[in-house]
Amino acid sequence: MSPEGTAVQTPAPAAPTGRRGRRAADVPALVERAREGDARSVARLISLVEDASPALREVAAALAPHTGRAQVLGLTGSPGVGKSTTTTALVRALRARELRVGVLAVDPSSPFSGGALLGDRVRMQDHAGDSGVYIRSMASRGHLGGLSWATPQALRVLDAAGCDVVLIETVGVGQSELEIASLADTTLVLVAPGMGDGIQAAKAGILEVADVFVVNKADRDGADTTVRDLRYMLSLGGRHSEAGHWRPPIVKTVASRDADNGMEQVLGKIEEHRAWLESSGEAHRRRTERAAREIEAIALASLRERMGDVHGSAALGTLADRVVAGESDPFTAADELLEQL
Amino acid sequence: MSPEGTAVQTPAPAAPTGRRGRRAADVPALVERAREGDARSVARLISLVEDASPALREVAAALAPHTGRAQVLGLTGSPGVGKSTTTTALVRALRARELRVGVLAVDPSSPFSGGALLGDRVRMQDHAGDSGVYIRSMASRGHLGGLSWATPQALRVLDAAGCDVVLIETVGVGQSELEIASLADTTLVLVAPGMGDGIQAAKAGILEVADVFVVNKADRDGADTTVRDLRYMLSLGGRHSEAGHWRPPIVKTVASRDADNGMEQVLGKIEEHRAWLESSGEAHRRRTERAAREIEAIALASLRERMGDVHGSAALGTLADRVVAGESDPFTAADELLEQL
Repeated sequence: MSPEGTAVQTPAPAAPTGRRGRRAADVPALVERAREGDARSVARLISLVEDASPALREVAAALAPHTGRAQVLGLTGSPGVGKSTTTTALVRALRARELRVGVLAVDPSSPFSGGALLGDRVRMQDHAGDSGVYIRSMASRGHLGGLSWATPQALRVLDAAGCDVVLIETVGVGQSELEIASLADTTLVLVAPGMGDGIQAAKAGILEVADVFVVNKADRDGADTTVRDLRYMLSLGGRHSEAGHWRPPIVKTVASRDADNGMEQVLGKIEEHRAWLESSGEAHRRRTERAAREIEAIALASLRERMGDVHGSAALGTLADRVVAGESDPFTAADELLEQL
Repeated sequence: MSPEGTAVQTPAPAAPTGRRGRRAADVPALVERAREGDARSVARLISLVEDASPALREVAAALAPHTGRAQVLGLTGSPGVGKSTTTTALVRALRARELRVGVLAVDPSSPFSGGALLGDRVRMQDHAGDSGVYIRSMASRGHLGGLSWATPQALRVLDAAGCDVVLIETVGVGQSELEIASLADTTLVLVAPGMGDGIQAAKAGILEVADVFVVNKADRDGADTTVRDLRYMLSLGGRHSEAGHWRPPIVKTVASRDADNGMEQVLGKIEEHRAWLESSGEAHRRRTERAAREIEAIALASLRERMGDVHGSAALGTLADRVVAGESDPFTAADELLEQL
């Protein structure tokens, strides 16, 4: 049993079949069933995009008209701050408001890994009938250990499937908190008291990405100190001190409690942030920038693929070697990369 | 006068002329003169690459055979830790070893901004004759406020011009410390005691990028606490705790002193790190990865340029808008981006 919560391990959803013969017939039906709330179809679609199956483009095209509705929440923090417990509590609070919720756990250390689920507190993703909650673990195979490039595509599946809220949970190390912030409308950064200055410090790279700070385990000693430290860090400036910018609020929670756990306050701040996003025009700016980055990344990946090497390493590696050896320069190498299309 | 040191503001080097008529004849001669140690030619070449002039590709091609020699040092840290003073002191120590040194200051808050220089302690870049030191401020106009994309090209100019060491100084905020680490062979992270837990914490995003920690202003109260805190943070893990990895040493300095300022110890650790890089094969891996990223970035920039919009925002923006509106999907948009070549 994880100290994080009551999550239970279950088998991962079935891997994509890879049977090309089924693909053409499958996608429209899968999308149709996913939109009707069929959890297995949602899981299949995510598998198709996650494994960059041949159906990936067909899936993306079929989803497009149905996307753009979901509110995307990012949840990040160091190991041990209670991300999974908080995810569980947030999902319950959202379900109490009768919202449909998707969870993408991009965290190798998460108890949700391998397609596990939130146990007895919420329904499982491949439960028959209406679940209202889809939970999916994503492989953390993005570059720099961050979010998988498939995460935005899985997000599109859950959005198209009618999730009102999609919560992306990732451990806050390296690049992942920057990537989650680029995907999410609102990024929650979890911290916890009493973990020592060192860990406290290790979390500070998240200052720039936090829209809402959640001080979890607030019934422990040192919670007020943690809040004060965060306030102090925020007062030191960065983007948050500029006029017209959102100043991240700090909410204290005890996510492990069944009631009075602070989740209503968190949801309240998320709503305030959403209102600010819309009124400031930041919402549209973020969504457009997100799409532009996604297009760019796919275009670059597509370039590599067209060079006859799915991973791009061989051709690019050869060009890089020549640049390192002084036999070529990066501009000539880039031209060659493009000419090889 | 900046509290950071004795830097003096001087006019920036001349902007690139943009006179296309001069370009074809200039580049080979400029490279030739730069390699002979002419500081003005070095400055001109950096201006040509920095402003993405039409001569950029010609410059890059002309430089390529002469690159790959320089040792690249990154220097990053929060404002106020003494980056400029340390840069000054390091340059002096390197000059005492009769090494040719280039400095690229990518820091809007740096007293070197606008092409300023290290004042009376080292010779100015456009000083006639042998200077042994080139100093150049780079515009911090990269995405996410980080290093300008021109920084790798300026690095190539200094490398080709015969600099034994190129020191890239940047303020440690947002992405810039990750970008500097991707450019540098050895990344020095500066911290200073007595700046409060908050600032201490704000520096912790740099844990992952530090090859050598420099605790500057070590004559101040709290220096030992800072060293202890760093040791503790390092002990918490991350890449440094894995076998075969470099464990970043911590060096105490008082960069403002004329002697016994700790720079010899810093240079000693840099040499140890260089030896580790070479023996572990990490040196080649880093250089190849650096070149590959550079090629990729240029290829993508080139794609945008070919679409008839140098900045790529219009065409990509239109595609992104369509994806946001659900009228297209990112894969179709990426195909369209590529087809418009």
